[in-house]
Amino acid sequence: MALNSKSSHLPPLPFKPKVVNQTILDLSWQDKNIENMIGATQVPLGVAGPVEIPDLGKFVVPLATTEAALVASVNRGLKTLRQATHLQIAVRYAGMTRGPIFEAGDLKTAIAAGRAIKTKLVPLFKQRLKDISQHTNLIKIQTQVLGRYLFVRFRFDTDEAMGMNMTTYAATALSEIISRQLGLKLTTVSANFCSDKKLSFSNFFFGRGYQVWLEAVISQNSLKNILKTNIDNLVKVYQQKIWYGTSMAGGFSFNAQVANVIAAFYLATGQDLGHVADNSQATLVMEKPDKDLYLSLFLPNLNIGVVGGGTKLPCQKEAIDLVLKGLNSEYAGKKSAVLASVLAAAAAAGELSLLAALSTNTLACAHKTLSGYGKGDK
Amino acid sequence: MALNSKSSHLPPLPFKPKVVNQTILDLSWQDKNIENMIGATQVPLGVAGPVEIPDLGKFVVPLATTEAALVASVNRGLKTLRQATHLQIAVRYAGMTRGPIFEAGDLKTAIAAGRAIKTKLVPLFKQRLKDISQHTNLIKIQTQVLGRYLFVRFRFDTDEAMGMNMTTYAATALSEIISRQLGLKLTTVSANFCSDKKLSFSNFFFGRGYQVWLEAVISQNSLKNILKTNIDNLVKVYQQKIWYGTSMAGGFSFNAQVANVIAAFYLATGQDLGHVADNSQATLVMEKPDKDLYLSLFLPNLNIGVVGGGTKLPCQKEAIDLVLKGLNSEYAGKKSAVLASVLAAAAAAGELSLLAALSTNTLACAHKTLSGYGKGDK
Amino acid sequence: MALNSKSSHLPPLPFKPKVVNQTILDLSWQDKNIENMIGATQVPLGVAGPVEIPDLGKFVVPLATTEAALVASVNRGLKTLRQATHLQIAVRYAGMTRGPIFEAGDLKTAIAAGRAIKTKLVPLFKQRLKDISQHTNLIKIQTQVLGRYLFVRFRFDTDEAMGMNMTTYAATALSEIISRQLGLKLTTVSANFCSDKKLSFSNFFFGRGYQVWLEAVISQNSLKNILKTNIDNLVKVYQQKIWYGTSMAGGFSFNAQVANVIAAFYLATGQDLGHVADNSQATLVMEKPDKDLYLSLFLPNLNIGVVGGGTKLPCQKEAIDLVLKGLNSEYAGKKSAVLASVLAAAAAAGELSLLAALSTNTLACAHKTLSGYGKGDK
Amino acid sequence: MALNSKSSHLPPLPFKPKVVNQTILDLSWQDKNIENMIGATQVPLGVAGPVEIPDLGKFVVPLATTEAALVASVNRGLKTLRQATHLQIAVRYAGMTRGPIFEAGDLKTAIAAGRAIKTKLVPLFKQRLKDISQHTNLIKIQTQVLGRYLFVRFRFDTDEAMGMNMTTYAATALSEIISRQLGLKLTTVSANFCSDKKLSFSNFFFGRGYQVWLEAVISQNSLKNILKTNIDNLVKVYQQKIWYGTSMAGGFSFNAQVANVIAAFYLATGQDLGHVADNSQATLVMEKPDKDLYLSLFLPNLNIGVVGGGTKLPCQKEAIDLVLKGLNSEYAGKKSAVLASVLAAAAAAGELSLLAALSTNTLACAHKTLSGYGKGDK
Repeated sequence: MALNSKSSHLPPLPFKPKVVNQTILDLSWQDKNIENMIGATQVPLGVAGPVEIPDLGKFVVPLATTEAALVASVNRGLKTLRQATHLQIAVRYAGMTRGPIFEAGDLKTAIAAGRAIKTKLVPLFKQRLKDISQHTNLIKIQTQVLGRYLFVRFRFDTDEAMGMNMTTYAATALSEIISRQLGLKLTTVSANFCSDKKLSFSNFFFGRGYQVWLEAVISQNSLKNILKTNIDNLVKVYQQKIWYGTSMAGGFSFNAQVANVIAAFYLATGQDLGHVADNSQATLVMEKPDKDLYLSLFLPNLNIGVVGGGTKLPCQKEAIDLVLKGLNSEYAGKKSAVLASVLAAAAAAGELSLLAALSTNTLACAHKTLSGYGKGDK
Repeated sequence: MALNSKSSHLPPLPFKPKVVNQTILDLSWQDKNIENMIGATQVPLGVAGPVEIPDLGKFVVPLATTEAALVASVNRGLKTLRQATHLQIAVRYAGMTRGPIFEAGDLKTAIAAGRAIKTKLVPLFKQRLKDISQHTNLIKIQTQVLGRYLFVRFRFDTDEAMGMNMTTYAATALSEIISRQLGLKLTTVSANFCSDKKLSFSNFFFGRGYQVWLEAVISQNSLKNILKTNIDNLVKVYQQKIWYGTSMAGGFSFNAQVANVIAAFYLATGQDLGHVADNSQATLVMEKPDKDLYLSLFLPNLNIGVVGGGTKLPCQKEAIDLVLKGLNSEYAGKKSAVLASVLAAAAAAGELSLLAALSTNTLACAHKTLSGYGKGDK
Repeated sequence: MALNSKSSHLPPLPFKPKVVNQTILDLSWQDKNIENMIGATQVPLGVAGPVEIPDLGKFVVPLATTEAALVASVNRGLKTLRQATHLQIAVRYAGMTRGPIFEAGDLKTAIAAGRAIKTKLVPLFKQRLKDISQHTNLIKIQTQVLGRYLFVRFRFDTDEAMGMNMTTYAATALSEIISRQLGLKLTTVSANFCSDKKLSFSNFFFGRGYQVWLEAVISQNSLKNILKTNIDNLVKVYQQKIWYGTSMAGGFSFNAQVANVIAAFYLATGQDLGHVADNSQATLVMEKPDKDLYLSLFLPNLNIGVVGGGTKLPCQKEAIDLVLKGLNSEYAGKKSAVLASVLAAAAAAGELSLLAALSTNTLACAHKTLSGYGKGDK
Repeated sequence: MALNSKSSHLPPLPFKPKVVNQTILDLSWQDKNIENMIGATQVPLGVAGPVEIPDLGKFVVPLATTEAALVASVNRGLKTLRQATHLQIAVRYAGMTRGPIFEAGDLKTAIAAGRAIKTKLVPLFKQRLKDISQHTNLIKIQTQVLGRYLFVRFRFDTDEAMGMNMTTYAATALSEIISRQLGLKLTTVSANFCSDKKLSFSNFFFGRGYQVWLEAVISQNSLKNILKTNIDNLVKVYQQKIWYGTSMAGGFSFNAQVANVIAAFYLATGQDLGHVADNSQATLVMEKPDKDLYLSLFLPNLNIGVVGGGTKLPCQKEAIDLVLKGLNSEYAGKKSAVLASVLAAAAAAGELSLLAALSTNTLACAHKTLSGYGKGDK
């Protein structure tokens, strides 16, 4: 909404978007980002950090959220990470995926087709992709058979875009080749074998978008001074919450609040929020191997881009620029990978801070203070 | 962001929020919704619908998103649902949960404590809750034991609020009673036994927030005229994508794009976006029992409120009001339940529309047209 | 097989069971336990233990297996448990389940039927059960709705039998009442909502058959003298194998070799071996809270009986008697519960011993020695 | 047990195995297959079939079980499969796995080590394996990193053996090379990353042992004459039980009774019964594409061998021979693969027969008749 009207943030019904004040609300958005546009939703944007990541730079983390304490929590965690005696981040780009399903005449035809797709059709695929887009390159093809059905999981390098749509176009084109060359019938280009926005172990194992690993070593002093806790309590909460609690609840996301940080960062930087569903399946490690805290976080699939989709919108673009402002000048890799790394740091910070609060049973207090609780229930 | 400055949507660094133009950006937000605020992120807001829900009213669905085609997709689905020969929605409020973990002296003490918590401590709990908040009522207590550890899953009625924070305060208070009365040691008030923002089968089975069931019967004509498909193709895609595809990918969310619709609706109405992670585990049914399409959607845990958190912000509040404007005047239930119902209809619409597009292999086309693809990769 | 013929353990084809020497092979088995019987398979039977369980007695553990080292492994673990400074076992009988699915006219009818089944139909159910069997009593009814489908999960007390068949008869009878009284159509009496012989979180949460919790505290000395390891190594292997390894492999059974022990104990005592599939989803805890090892094992569903099925066969019956010989004379509970407790002790012993071997990297050695490896590959 | 003594099947306590009548019970077993042997458990052995598998032969299926109706059920299903108008079976050998975990100095060292293991260490691995066993060949190496921990999943071709022990020896030897060459510390050679006897999605995706796919087309007449059902009822039960029921119960094994058939076949042929836990995660497809029934079954990991372990024992060896007697003389592949194929046919038969019984709600009747129920509860 965010309209200038004194009495309302909403235009009068029936919707006539043309009355909207364009200095605030850019109606060109609805050409590419939305339909039936009636305004814009404003979400508070805060910043946490900075955090210095070896070889990459020193970054501020934009987070858009309506949940009190989240930015403060990440900020506190990043402050702790800044004092880490050791911090490493590794990134692997798995590529964006689409998983069509084909129907073959029978089982053995399906199996043979799976083999052909991974071998002799590859040159045809590559030729076709060249015609479609200079930013969509085939990385890998995985197949699986169930009876006469053949599943294919295409993985594309979509350059600096998150690339879901590019991947759909490309997978559609390659599926036509498969149908034509092998006589299979395409049922659908997206058969949940992708998997898109549904938590799945295929995304966990093979990755989708970026996989990021982070590790840090944090001294007892930092824990005491910043997080007001100690290693033993922290590791105890970690063990009981992350492993015992998650497994006893029948869960598969062994972390504390990664979904919160991903949602806020994705919102701020124009990513697709549906990906919170699967991207949040992350694995946290906290140990006391010696006297310091050993922390690691594994994020198996992060769907992040710096072009396309919501990243083109002005607020979102500026938030991306705000992050990238901290990038070392000699960095030559993908900027999307930088965003994924910064997000990993923020997510790890969120884990540290929340588990620290939980270890001292001060979570309720933090929320009360930061959200003004007591002045009225919420 | 959303600042008036000509050259930038962002304030100059270092951040001085005070320079922000307050007619646009309400700085009072940072008292309750965020910290380190530097602006606001604007996300395009569109509407889909309306949809008429028996006994409730006729509703417009606000969706905030940056993903082209989403609003159009839900809109097309809702148009189809409007022609349904049968539409039913049922809602159950499971209550908001927190799941602390306690350490007992030994296994049998933990088991005995679990029993005491569900029986003799209940009056103490209720008394204590009365002192804390008139909006937080204990609905149910579930317990589980693992060795000497006792997990408790409190379920609270938090009235019209999503209630996560209220639940944290209440669970903290009740945990103190448990510690004091039974001599158990509280490790942490939130032990992933809740489970909050992590997909889990406890949320799926027992519910968290609202559970919503929707069913509709749709004629072949509607499918043909609006969705440009037919039942046989639709059911074929359904079966192969939702069941074969999801299971072969090691997934647990048997639907197509529920996460997309939840994310856009939550963003528009000020809900907590981290909940996309678990709330999106929904189960879709599509059948051809006779000549019409039978459709049902089960959403096992929707964390929705109309007070507290982001619902207080102006754009979000107006979006909620926009929905509730359609409510029948005689309706006497919770307004949060209405939002949950409307979301269910929107989610079902999204399923219908996407599966229809997938059944005719026109998904790529729809995205190309709606996102302006071809004018430049994205 | 196990026939007396010199040249073969098998009767000549075509099968003429009558030539079988009945002093060895009791052909009456095929009336109740099998069809097309051609002989009997002999599996080596060993014993481990004894183990003393507080309040129950002192038990020998029969294990039938062809896997070298398994009995030795459990035996070594039980030796360690005998030195435990603390050992507790708790048992809960959840009852045997069947989960039919019904089709109602629509969603709301399905929901209303679910309520009726849990309330007003209960007296009819109880009356009907009285007519069927004096050993099948209704414990609990759980329901779930998906569209117009209603799932029911009946839990029956089947006395000393594992009770799957009794439960099928009872559920069939009660399903007829449901169909007749409520006008629902029964699709099938066993809709995988039971769940029978498929790992499922409903069995994990609600139990099926027996749920057993065991805890023990073991001194460093015992670990050193018997298991040749120390707590720190043991806990390190535990953490990395059970939590990190299982979760990174996409697994849900957080233990080491519970399936092995269940299979061998079930085979020896005439239980249904298909239940290894779900019964083996157990959760192990190993910690070093202070200077001793804290161990606990949670077995959420054990389908064990002492009458019916394979328990009537002579070898199996004697193995059960061998266990029960150790029972305290004052024990008044179910004997099946005793077997479940003894199995839990054996399973915990197997965990201890295997993790100890893994912690010193001597697993390969143990297998080589015990299986005669080196004299020829296997 | 299976002893000749008139009054008991068990030797007198304390156990003196030497008194056992060796013509029946071969005490040499305890050298290689068990410890503390006191006798042998006899389990009724029945046969089902035969079933003809294209290119392989015509096979009888030995099943050892104490559960009435199981052999009859498989037999009925195989009779139906014999009338199939189309039957195909495909087998892939994924190899036997072990999954050690290593501790590196830090994350990036772990990642680099993972790369080295898959490239430059391979020649060392192959050399070492040559020294260990001529029957253990390295097929593939998969790695995964979690913080400073490196998981490796070795896949070995273990020739005609199921090969778990061979794999342990080999993985131990290769792990020593890794430790020595790369300076990593081996925590344990079996880190549940294998995964052994625990259901896991890594086994489901990558396979462990054999992966088998079966498909068949069955006419309406066969369904009517043999299974006393029709396609529509069968497919309805299939859909509601296998997909709706399993998913609503939080299960991951989308089949009916594969665990039963695996357990009985493994017991008869001397396989390791602990593998029922993970091997039973199979996916069933039943459709009515046209007028006939289309059936497929996918068994993602079957751990079967014809040498080593229990396959050496006389009854078990004869059961294997009984199967292999049906093998075409020109077959040149692995005999273990034949057993896996025959098991797949038996498992598919069990699915057909049980679902047919469930579709006519005659399961209770079948059990009553075959188990003599009514003569006394069980």
